[in-house]
Amino acid sequence: MMRSGDIEEQVIETIEDARAKKPLAGSITNYVTVDFVANAQLACGGSAAMVYLPDEAEALALIGEAFYINVGTLIPSHEEAMCHAASVLHDAGKPWVLDPVGIGLGKSRERILMHMKECVPSIVRCNASEAIALAELWGLDTNNATSSVKGVDSNDSIELARPAAVAIARFIGGAVAVSGSVDMVTDGEQVAYLEGGSPFMEKVTGFGCALGGVAAVHSACAEPFIAAVTASAMFDFAGRAAGEGCKGPASFKVAFIDGLFSARPEDAAAMLARVEEA
Amino acid sequence: MMRSGDIEEQVIETIEDARAKKPLAGSITNYVTVDFVANAQLACGGSAAMVYLPDEAEALALIGEAFYINVGTLIPSHEEAMCHAASVLHDAGKPWVLDPVGIGLGKSRERILMHMKECVPSIVRCNASEAIALAELWGLDTNNATSSVKGVDSNDSIELARPAAVAIARFIGGAVAVSGSVDMVTDGEQVAYLEGGSPFMEKVTGFGCALGGVAAVHSACAEPFIAAVTASAMFDFAGRAAGEGCKGPASFKVAFIDGLFSARPEDAAAMLARVEEA
Amino acid sequence: MMRSGDIEEQVIETIEDARAKKPLAGSITNYVTVDFVANAQLACGGSAAMVYLPDEAEALALIGEAFYINVGTLIPSHEEAMCHAASVLHDAGKPWVLDPVGIGLGKSRERILMHMKECVPSIVRCNASEAIALAELWGLDTNNATSSVKGVDSNDSIELARPAAVAIARFIGGAVAVSGSVDMVTDGEQVAYLEGGSPFMEKVTGFGCALGGVAAVHSACAEPFIAAVTASAMFDFAGRAAGEGCKGPASFKVAFIDGLFSARPEDAAAMLARVEEA
Repeated sequence: MMRSGDIEEQVIETIEDARAKKPLAGSITNYVTVDFVANAQLACGGSAAMVYLPDEAEALALIGEAFYINVGTLIPSHEEAMCHAASVLHDAGKPWVLDPVGIGLGKSRERILMHMKECVPSIVRCNASEAIALAELWGLDTNNATSSVKGVDSNDSIELARPAAVAIARFIGGAVAVSGSVDMVTDGEQVAYLEGGSPFMEKVTGFGCALGGVAAVHSACAEPFIAAVTASAMFDFAGRAAGEGCKGPASFKVAFIDGLFSARPEDAAAMLARVEEA
Repeated sequence: MMRSGDIEEQVIETIEDARAKKPLAGSITNYVTVDFVANAQLACGGSAAMVYLPDEAEALALIGEAFYINVGTLIPSHEEAMCHAASVLHDAGKPWVLDPVGIGLGKSRERILMHMKECVPSIVRCNASEAIALAELWGLDTNNATSSVKGVDSNDSIELARPAAVAIARFIGGAVAVSGSVDMVTDGEQVAYLEGGSPFMEKVTGFGCALGGVAAVHSACAEPFIAAVTASAMFDFAGRAAGEGCKGPASFKVAFIDGLFSARPEDAAAMLARVEEA
Repeated sequence: MMRSGDIEEQVIETIEDARAKKPLAGSITNYVTVDFVANAQLACGGSAAMVYLPDEAEALALIGEAFYINVGTLIPSHEEAMCHAASVLHDAGKPWVLDPVGIGLGKSRERILMHMKECVPSIVRCNASEAIALAELWGLDTNNATSSVKGVDSNDSIELARPAAVAIARFIGGAVAVSGSVDMVTDGEQVAYLEGGSPFMEKVTGFGCALGGVAAVHSACAEPFIAAVTASAMFDFAGRAAGEGCKGPASFKVAFIDGLFSARPEDAAAMLARVEEA
């Protein structure tokens, strides 16, 4: 297990690296939040490009440093594009982030997410219930993982999802980032908790999607666990800062993106609250 | 006919109810303003989810409390998804809002809107010319309704659409909300007028779409007429407040969404100017 | 070659005309920035409408004063819609703007852009590398055009693209607007340079797309060269003003759109730095 201080140091380096190198992280992502994803990626130093055709996804997957696939707002042609992109990424050994948003809604997502299992994302970004549903869909054994549910406090749902998150992380050999009032990131061996953010994040669409896109940018600069912790740390810091003295959800969103852009790396890294053995 | 005071009281209750219960109002809506629709719904306390596939629309229609269908930015697969969603909503007896945006542009919208006639939306949200076009497309008799056009003032086009709005409301047994410099809502028996808003609403895309999405949220908490008056009242109040001292359309939009979030229910309800017999 | 003063005068007139006449410029444009394009068009006085079906594109092309086609975020049905719209625009002699964004990414864009050659856009809006790629794709001779590359300063890439831009402008008999840290607009006879903007424009997605949409609005009020200079002048002025004292990319974007709305025409026209023979 890594020490907190070592993780924080790598988070700082990853933030600085992304700002210096401007890695290209292409996306196939939902239409609702696509602008937010792109602007969050740019605010963190990355380059963004969104595509929806198989031939364009293949080209973008190969020229980019990382990729992001979010299964929201599917149209019929997305299935081929997403599955082909994931296969290309897998074969090319490129880091990529999967967001299984809305898992359970209809059969199309299920088929796509089953294909994604074979293509092995580097990072899965989701909320607690999506982590549990994905582990179940993929038939992963979550009984042996540690469950540390302690009651009905605000961390409850995150803790309920911990065995599933650990199981998914072990299966993919990467990292799982579970977003909630407290954020959890695991690589299957260790579980990092981050605190920060703002209740306003529930009042604006797309923070989860944007986090996935930013995690893809950071995955071009660090291994999956550090990349996922870095993106979560940036969001927790910028969210907390934006929430102070904020008038409502739209001005919060503006302040949040500004905050991603101007965050001091050490302030973001300080959002890491603790690390535990998985 | 309801008394103004009774309507205002129910508007206050509906605003509070939506904030307390967070009803899920799914949408099939256009790509231009989909983010605005979702964020307006969230700012009013609702939950938002957007889909574009028939299987996902069916699942969302059944798990949600209400639905919103906006026929903008059609792609070939939208026709099946929208028509299937509307049929499912009709069969399940769920409240849903139709926005016939751009009616008259091409044959695809016409076919979809003819199908919507059979599925009977609870609320139609539109502008004056769209109300007139929809009544004509649906073959409704607008001769017997009262026309009270008084001259070429700013309310003119709204008044011209009044017979069409009343006819549509009677046909669907629901409500029609016609947006303009003055807003009109009718259930076919009574016609409510709301004043407020801002000229900046013409300078930002999507206020009509967002109003439809918010009306869907409120239709999960009240009958169609009250739901449509509530959404219009929220928009008139937040629009008026945001317009004061505003620098331009983009800061207006930010202040508007913040205003939806923080509006006092009684301030919104006070936007109701008068009620008349239809 | 026009004198700078004459160009500035026509730019002022075009800005005022667009605000007075509210010309409708329809679009088929990418999903990432579609809201930004529409809001930028509205902020400059235009009317916006976005479509994705061939029948709707045809109707919109015929009722609108101008059109904008941006080949980003293609889905399978876009090819037919875009190519049909361009043919209709060509046959109707309507001004329209092409943005060959992402040229070189996959085969679909290439096919669409080859079709666009036959439909002859009035204005091509692009960045330096896209201008070079488009001239090459269209097989245009760029050897005879003047290259005035002087070194590795910030204007370098713009200057490298000058022969390509001139060749495209001559071929289409219209104008090419190349965006960069300095903006270049040419009609094949003269080359105008505009200075202004902000480094924040690189940190927000969609400034190029929005510029194309605004150029379409202005092309309803002026010939292509003046329209392209006008749109670029508005962006350079609003960008410079918004960048002053700005906290980050999201508040920059808000201030930018506000700035398009409130810009004094003579301040925008003053962004024209110089004009040269092509």
